[in-house]
Amino acid sequence: MNSSMIRVILGHVLRIEAAFLMLPCLVALIYGERNGYIYLITAGFCALMGVLMTFRKPRESAIYLKEGCVATALSWIVLSLFGALPFWLTGEIPSYIDSLFETISGFTTTGASIVDRVEELSKCSLFWRSFTHWLGGMGVLVFLLAVIPLSGGSNINLMRAESPGPSVGKLVPKIKSSARILYVIYFFMTLAEMILLKLGGMSFFEAITLSFGTAGTGGFGVLSDSIASYSHYCQWVITVFMILFGINFNAYYFIILGKIKQAFLMEEVRWYLGIVLVAVTSISFNIYSLYGNVSDTIRNAGFQVASIITTTGYATADFDLWPMTSKVILVMLMFVGACAGSTGGGIKVSRIVIMFKTVKKELKTYIHPKSIKKIMFEDKPVEHEVLRAINVYLITYIIIFFASLLIVSFENYDFGTIFTAVVATFNNIGPGLSMVGPTRNFAFFGDVSKIVLMFDMLAGRLELFPLLILFNPHVIKDLILTGRKRHG
Amino acid sequence: MNSSMIRVILGHVLRIEAAFLMLPCLVALIYGERNGYIYLITAGFCALMGVLMTFRKPRESAIYLKEGCVATALSWIVLSLFGALPFWLTGEIPSYIDSLFETISGFTTTGASIVDRVEELSKCSLFWRSFTHWLGGMGVLVFLLAVIPLSGGSNINLMRAESPGPSVGKLVPKIKSSARILYVIYFFMTLAEMILLKLGGMSFFEAITLSFGTAGTGGFGVLSDSIASYSHYCQWVITVFMILFGINFNAYYFIILGKIKQAFLMEEVRWYLGIVLVAVTSISFNIYSLYGNVSDTIRNAGFQVASIITTTGYATADFDLWPMTSKVILVMLMFVGACAGSTGGGIKVSRIVIMFKTVKKELKTYIHPKSIKKIMFEDKPVEHEVLRAINVYLITYIIIFFASLLIVSFENYDFGTIFTAVVATFNNIGPGLSMVGPTRNFAFFGDVSKIVLMFDMLAGRLELFPLLILFNPHVIKDLILTGRKRHG
Repeated sequence: MNSSMIRVILGHVLRIEAAFLMLPCLVALIYGERNGYIYLITAGFCALMGVLMTFRKPRESAIYLKEGCVATALSWIVLSLFGALPFWLTGEIPSYIDSLFETISGFTTTGASIVDRVEELSKCSLFWRSFTHWLGGMGVLVFLLAVIPLSGGSNINLMRAESPGPSVGKLVPKIKSSARILYVIYFFMTLAEMILLKLGGMSFFEAITLSFGTAGTGGFGVLSDSIASYSHYCQWVITVFMILFGINFNAYYFIILGKIKQAFLMEEVRWYLGIVLVAVTSISFNIYSLYGNVSDTIRNAGFQVASIITTTGYATADFDLWPMTSKVILVMLMFVGACAGSTGGGIKVSRIVIMFKTVKKELKTYIHPKSIKKIMFEDKPVEHEVLRAINVYLITYIIIFFASLLIVSFENYDFGTIFTAVVATFNNIGPGLSMVGPTRNFAFFGDVSKIVLMFDMLAGRLELFPLLILFNPHVIKDLILTGRKRHG
Repeated sequence: MNSSMIRVILGHVLRIEAAFLMLPCLVALIYGERNGYIYLITAGFCALMGVLMTFRKPRESAIYLKEGCVATALSWIVLSLFGALPFWLTGEIPSYIDSLFETISGFTTTGASIVDRVEELSKCSLFWRSFTHWLGGMGVLVFLLAVIPLSGGSNINLMRAESPGPSVGKLVPKIKSSARILYVIYFFMTLAEMILLKLGGMSFFEAITLSFGTAGTGGFGVLSDSIASYSHYCQWVITVFMILFGINFNAYYFIILGKIKQAFLMEEVRWYLGIVLVAVTSISFNIYSLYGNVSDTIRNAGFQVASIITTTGYATADFDLWPMTSKVILVMLMFVGACAGSTGGGIKVSRIVIMFKTVKKELKTYIHPKSIKKIMFEDKPVEHEVLRAINVYLITYIIIFFASLLIVSFENYDFGTIFTAVVATFNNIGPGLSMVGPTRNFAFFGDVSKIVLMFDMLAGRLELFPLLILFNPHVIKDLILTGRKRHG
């Protein structure tokens, strides 16, 4: 295994993190918070480690799928381990496990928090917390590919391991250009939301942090009641932007190229918007009696549906108090997730649609045994390899899901709590139902459960395999051995 | 579509049902119950319908997979519609929907009841209720194939549609002989359990009905507290027989042929017994503090694990009061189910094992991309077609599961109740947790939910596709059109 190349990638990741840790320092400077020093020290530490790790150039820069997966998984772990330091060192989150939970929840754009009253955090910590969403949303390795000239033609393996969805879509032939285009779209959409929120009367700080949370489909807010106390205008802006960030970014690239019709013809996007529409309508009928007027009903239904299907996790209403049908619809949306190629989590609309088509095709072969039509998606036949990958993904998903449920059950909370705690972390949503409902938090879990849920958040964000491969005994042995060989 | 052949098969099924309805008449005669007349009238009605339907011979006796599925699904529905009549006509279950629920629950070997106090039912009704388990366990069409000389070589399509598991195992080349061998093994094993229970001090009536419930992995008992008030000896006998009836019947055929080693080498059987052992051990540790001594702990853990994994649904303890970890293990076992080729329900151990192997293989290909080893099961490579079928099964299973959950959620009960109500019916188990726990029943659900749960029981027993095909608009149209043509 090419472990020097992995080391160099990790070094670059730490250097990027060091650079980004300067942003909360700036925030601390503006608000005159002493905590800023902690962020400065952490940044320095990251930079030092990063420089040391990238100092010696690797002899061989080519990496394959295995190294791509290992590098990605390790990058996310290292990023979180260092990113958690400021929360812990400032004492704002007294336990390191809790700090790590909060940071992984941030980078993986989950938004599940262990902080009881977020208002008590310093501005720089609140900023860093929300910024992890933004960085994690599009992916730190995609960022790295966009800014650092990594030689070797196999960078696609890094992007493949980090990008959500059943097949990676390079926008243009060059990886570097693809990564840049993605980040440019991402940046300007985030900026647009900030401006619209600022115009709606939010402070600069709120507009920035909440836009980070929306863009990354994360869900960390700056108030305990999430988005409930903002104006209806702001709630609608966030609703629309959550839906927009859940769309496959290829659609935006089509729009930039002027192929607007092509963007709207994307099958996944149409299914995604269709599901949103059906869910909002059904829930609106179901909760109308709670709100008594059409506008509040649709606003709350729309916000919660957008928040859950995009796996953001903001809330304007305590949907744990809604009728069971609405809750079941939301739990189903938690599994569905947003489009592939967006910043959202979950199983992804494209996988779900292809699964449905598989069943439809199967029923047809019972009736017309000789039909041999291929499954079509986005006007192309779905290759056997993609179908197989989706099936394996589904099975692995179920296995990890039940294994997590089993371990978390040791703490003996009610079924709704443990079930939705796993659903909400594994799909990178944030809040679940019952004791992890939108007005509650994850602080009450023990350390073992927290570690399992952290694993789930990472596994969910990296779509299972990159993280699982890291735990393979052969890979671990290989990593240690080749590491030693180089130094020996 | 060959609908005259379907008509003839349904006619035969009704004739068989008429014959079996004489058994509760006999019971009524012994106990001097007037309800026996109702059973006699129903039997006469079934016989009349059966004779009318088999009167005209079909021109063409060949049936294909489509007809096999339709015939199977319709057989089970007709069987239940007629089988429910006595409960309703005797007034012991006042509503026909409830009677149908109880009967479908019986034939599908689910064992979910809407009767609050079973002690108040007449002996002949209790007998009929338990006998439906026995008949449904091995399958009514398998019985039909064993006794009635249906001409045409495509009877395998009937057996395939009714037999549980990813691939149908003919024991011997001739279907008729296979079906007979299965029923002979089934009969003698049931008889052995009856004798052992009688020796343990049960009445003849109890020994017979409870053996029916065990053999079919059904779960209807004759007392409200299920098996809790019987002696420890009887509880152990039932535990052992539940486990035995959950084993692939091929194993018993090997034993009959003297190939005992081959029986114990069956991969699915070893996995199944392994899962039972691990589950009993884990639950024993988890519930030890509730019972305070090893023998009670193991007896209760063993009984409940055997009952749930085989999808029987008998209970000696209210496991809804157990700690959450034990409950989660039991819920996981509910999905796993017993071996293929047994009388048990659920997803089946073989499917689960093959799913795990798929994931293991996938992880390997990440690490060694060039390895092209096939997945092995029972020492044979698993064909691509079987893998595909398992995947489609899993996806369909999940879709039906969530659709059912959504409809049942309209009644606004807690998440644990509706989730496990669907789990327990879809996997043909019987009791779930919370409001459908082992000491409760399904009476409180509304008619819509009951219809959904009945659908789930049938879909679970017939392994999804035969029932789904029946609801395909093309098939319905085809059935009606060819039916008319014949009569016109």
